[in-house]
Amino acid sequence: MAEADHSTGRALANGKTRVDFQTEPARYRHWKLKVDGDVATLLMDVDEKGALFEGYELKLNSYDLGVDIELADALDRLRFEYPQVRAVVLRSAKPRVFSAGANIRMLAGATHAHKVNFCKFTNETRNGIEDFSENSGVATICAINGTAAGGGYELALASDYIMLVDDGTAAVSLPELPLLAVLPGTGGLTRVSDKRKVRRDHADVFCTTEEGVKGKRAVEWRLVDEVVPGSKFDEAIAGRARERAAKSNRGTASQGIKLAPLARTFTADAIEYGSLSVEFDRAARLATITLRGPASPPPASADAMTALGSEFWPLKLARELDDAILNIRLNELEVAAIVFKSSGDPAQVLAYDKFLDANKDHWLAREIRHLWKRVLKRVDLTSRSLVTLIEPGSCFAGTLAELVFASDRSYMLIGTRGGDNKPPAAMMLGDCNFGPYPMSNGLTRLACRFLANPADVDRAKAEIGKALDAEAAQELGLITFALDDIDWDDEVRVFLEERASFSPDGLTGMEANLRFAGPETMESKIFARLTAWQNWIFQRPNAIGEEGALKRYGTGQKPVFDTKRV
Amino acid sequence: MAEADHSTGRALANGKTRVDFQTEPARYRHWKLKVDGDVATLLMDVDEKGALFEGYELKLNSYDLGVDIELADALDRLRFEYPQVRAVVLRSAKPRVFSAGANIRMLAGATHAHKVNFCKFTNETRNGIEDFSENSGVATICAINGTAAGGGYELALASDYIMLVDDGTAAVSLPELPLLAVLPGTGGLTRVSDKRKVRRDHADVFCTTEEGVKGKRAVEWRLVDEVVPGSKFDEAIAGRARERAAKSNRGTASQGIKLAPLARTFTADAIEYGSLSVEFDRAARLATITLRGPASPPPASADAMTALGSEFWPLKLARELDDAILNIRLNELEVAAIVFKSSGDPAQVLAYDKFLDANKDHWLAREIRHLWKRVLKRVDLTSRSLVTLIEPGSCFAGTLAELVFASDRSYMLIGTRGGDNKPPAAMMLGDCNFGPYPMSNGLTRLACRFLANPADVDRAKAEIGKALDAEAAQELGLITFALDDIDWDDEVRVFLEERASFSPDGLTGMEANLRFAGPETMESKIFARLTAWQNWIFQRPNAIGEEGALKRYGTGQKPVFDTKRV
Repeated sequence: MAEADHSTGRALANGKTRVDFQTEPARYRHWKLKVDGDVATLLMDVDEKGALFEGYELKLNSYDLGVDIELADALDRLRFEYPQVRAVVLRSAKPRVFSAGANIRMLAGATHAHKVNFCKFTNETRNGIEDFSENSGVATICAINGTAAGGGYELALASDYIMLVDDGTAAVSLPELPLLAVLPGTGGLTRVSDKRKVRRDHADVFCTTEEGVKGKRAVEWRLVDEVVPGSKFDEAIAGRARERAAKSNRGTASQGIKLAPLARTFTADAIEYGSLSVEFDRAARLATITLRGPASPPPASADAMTALGSEFWPLKLARELDDAILNIRLNELEVAAIVFKSSGDPAQVLAYDKFLDANKDHWLAREIRHLWKRVLKRVDLTSRSLVTLIEPGSCFAGTLAELVFASDRSYMLIGTRGGDNKPPAAMMLGDCNFGPYPMSNGLTRLACRFLANPADVDRAKAEIGKALDAEAAQELGLITFALDDIDWDDEVRVFLEERASFSPDGLTGMEANLRFAGPETMESKIFARLTAWQNWIFQRPNAIGEEGALKRYGTGQKPVFDTKRV
Repeated sequence: MAEADHSTGRALANGKTRVDFQTEPARYRHWKLKVDGDVATLLMDVDEKGALFEGYELKLNSYDLGVDIELADALDRLRFEYPQVRAVVLRSAKPRVFSAGANIRMLAGATHAHKVNFCKFTNETRNGIEDFSENSGVATICAINGTAAGGGYELALASDYIMLVDDGTAAVSLPELPLLAVLPGTGGLTRVSDKRKVRRDHADVFCTTEEGVKGKRAVEWRLVDEVVPGSKFDEAIAGRARERAAKSNRGTASQGIKLAPLARTFTADAIEYGSLSVEFDRAARLATITLRGPASPPPASADAMTALGSEFWPLKLARELDDAILNIRLNELEVAAIVFKSSGDPAQVLAYDKFLDANKDHWLAREIRHLWKRVLKRVDLTSRSLVTLIEPGSCFAGTLAELVFASDRSYMLIGTRGGDNKPPAAMMLGDCNFGPYPMSNGLTRLACRFLANPADVDRAKAEIGKALDAEAAQELGLITFALDDIDWDDEVRVFLEERASFSPDGLTGMEANLRFAGPETMESKIFARLTAWQNWIFQRPNAIGEEGALKRYGTGQKPVFDTKRV
């Protein structure tokens, strides 16, 4: 076992023991978020001394997970706090360098698990940039003023429009293979092939050329959209931003809401949020996430929703669930399975779904649904076994029912439980189970579930709004097992024990395959084909061995490779 | 470097030093091929003592690469020697066992490279079974008379129709995860999800249940198509075979051709075939495959083609190229790059393509084109850098031009070469570059190449039949670089040296991503998502470490896992 004990292999630079995904603009060390009318600028200005972990410096706008956590937060601010923004300019505050990409010292010293988690989160952030453009109408223009290498160029690739200064030296590159013997880890190869549609032999040349491609060739090969002389760069950027902003369909709201810091209480074996709890049973390698339904009916109007701000139940719960999942991914590597439970009134959950649906053209309702979509995708891509337990008192309805369909298995209790006076569990379907929350493969979870017989989707649709007991849910194919009180405890216990007994790696590979039947999209290709190959290479001695390229980078010693082609 | 020196980690049981892919029915040790009218039976009867390598026995119809080489050969015989066959029954000669799958002792002792190559070849064989059904009209019915575990069930999954005896014990299973901490390596998870469309939670239960699923539940969960009582099994199989044969569109030819053994001469650094040569430059880690165009014009008629049998140039060359590629894959692991060259008259190559096209409804012409399609797919999936050098005297036209488009890069010489009186190189396009040879992603190589601008495909199509010099080919985007005689040697040398200097693993991952832009099919998902995850897991200590499941299987000792989820 080559990995250090700590999940990341390194001590956190801030003296804490847990990676925290919560931040806010006032605390940013690496980004500046400026809003000027309908155009925002995300200025990358990485603080060399601001590394998340000890042992490396973030030179030349290179980044680590800490830098990306701020970027992800900034994007959330743009979504919720600045609805007037209609285009984003992404640029660097450093002279002659856009970004050197993921920090190599960080990668060289990180555990395999950290490298995998780092790539996954940064991929999700970049997919979020594309989602912001496609679904909220806010395009990103990337202005490259110098070197954009590796992850630096991959960040550009997530933008809609790439501008490169034409000064004879500024270049884009993916030097991972020639320099480090690994692959670009944040979608680079897939976006070069499938988004930019670079011809494969050009892509081959590009990805094996350490210094990258600049000037006219970068445009001819479709690597960037435009090269601009340095003297006209600012003006051209501003022009492109205005054009994009003018074409945006984002609406005309001028006033956002404030994303308040999440209220969280950490104890040794639990985290308490406002609308959910996480409990850890570390001996059993389980995390149980209990989501709580709304305490009151939905507000009377969109204005009332806006007035509630980040206290509005669906927004609050989505943000808390996102944080809970990320915490488990990064800080709780021993957790084998995540158990979803819920408590509340399913009809109230559906009432909120209906409220969001009725206001789906309101910018805030729209952003909340897109947030749920992205959080649910994050759940799909979480390398832990996922199971939902549907018990009396639960509220797996509508949006929350998506967790049932995101789970590898679900168990629903038939009837009541001895010694408990709660009525039998009921699931409820809503319109939102049939459209607004597609998986990364482009299908709804129910369409993916019922790939064999699309008529089963229609059959389920006919039950929208009805309280479905365990037998009905079973008959509709919505759950895996319906069990009565006599069998429940034993069956669930045996399943969870079994899950904890299997090889964690085998489960990750199996779940990554079984969760995503059907078509592939660019996004799913990134997480499947590219990520899986990247993970493979991240274990190979040619990259991470003592004589491997990642370990020897910067030492002046050449790597020594096992020359067998596999 | 955990791998043994020899590419497979083991000595061959036959005392040779090279895995040979050539065999013939008279030499089979594991399969019996019986033809009765329009129904063939492939009877699996693995010889325990007939392992390809030393150190394990092939009990319970378990298999190794040697068993699969015979299966692949038998399928080729059915294609070419038995055109009257319209349905195939796949069954076991062992009582109460269909197949225990890939031999575990073999896997536990094999190098990583061998495991990867073994899975790739067996995947290609199973894809060939499906291609035989889809494109030649010969369906396979799999009759499972007992245990079909792991690779045994995966073989069934490649069939069109799965019948399971209903005797209270016969079951299908994918016990790889619970038993061995690896994934089913031959498409199992993908076919369960995407071909059989098993609901994901049922698939989760199935793939974590060591003993598998039997009887009625196997049908309900779509794992098999039919369960049949033992007393009626033979009769039911015969009935299904008759039904399928009656529905076949294979045509009515009654007389096949004989696939003669390939004539090959091995020397230390070369292999000479009838219509191609392979030369190894082991210091440079290169294999150069030179394909020779036809020596004479195409035959006058389909009957004349049939009379030529396996001496017919396109068939002969396809078989030889296939053997040459497989030899490099398995026996020449140090080869970093395969260089394709050719010699002959491009117009003659096109004349043969036209002949095949004119006779495309003739069973033999059809099978030859499907063979080329499969060989070209094998090239696409070969984990070596691929480069085509188009020089004076070459004949990269039509079918052979596909090798240019299959290559990671191509170089074409402008004009003539000093000291050589051959006229300048010419490429030629034919109809076959626009349809009959799709890649595993379902696109032609040109459609995939020109994903950015489909009009470029039409532009190329307009040039069919014309001799294209280097500048013209360059302008059409058909080649990577056009170089004159002054630059040629240096540029090519530097490229090949550079390629040999890169990390072999990094190149494999990069090429696997850049070669397959665009859509995904079940086949491409198997080679991308599933294979990549499988390769990852095949390196993890939880599988292959001294305390891992694969190493400890059968020892009575439980595996010890690193319990971190990654």
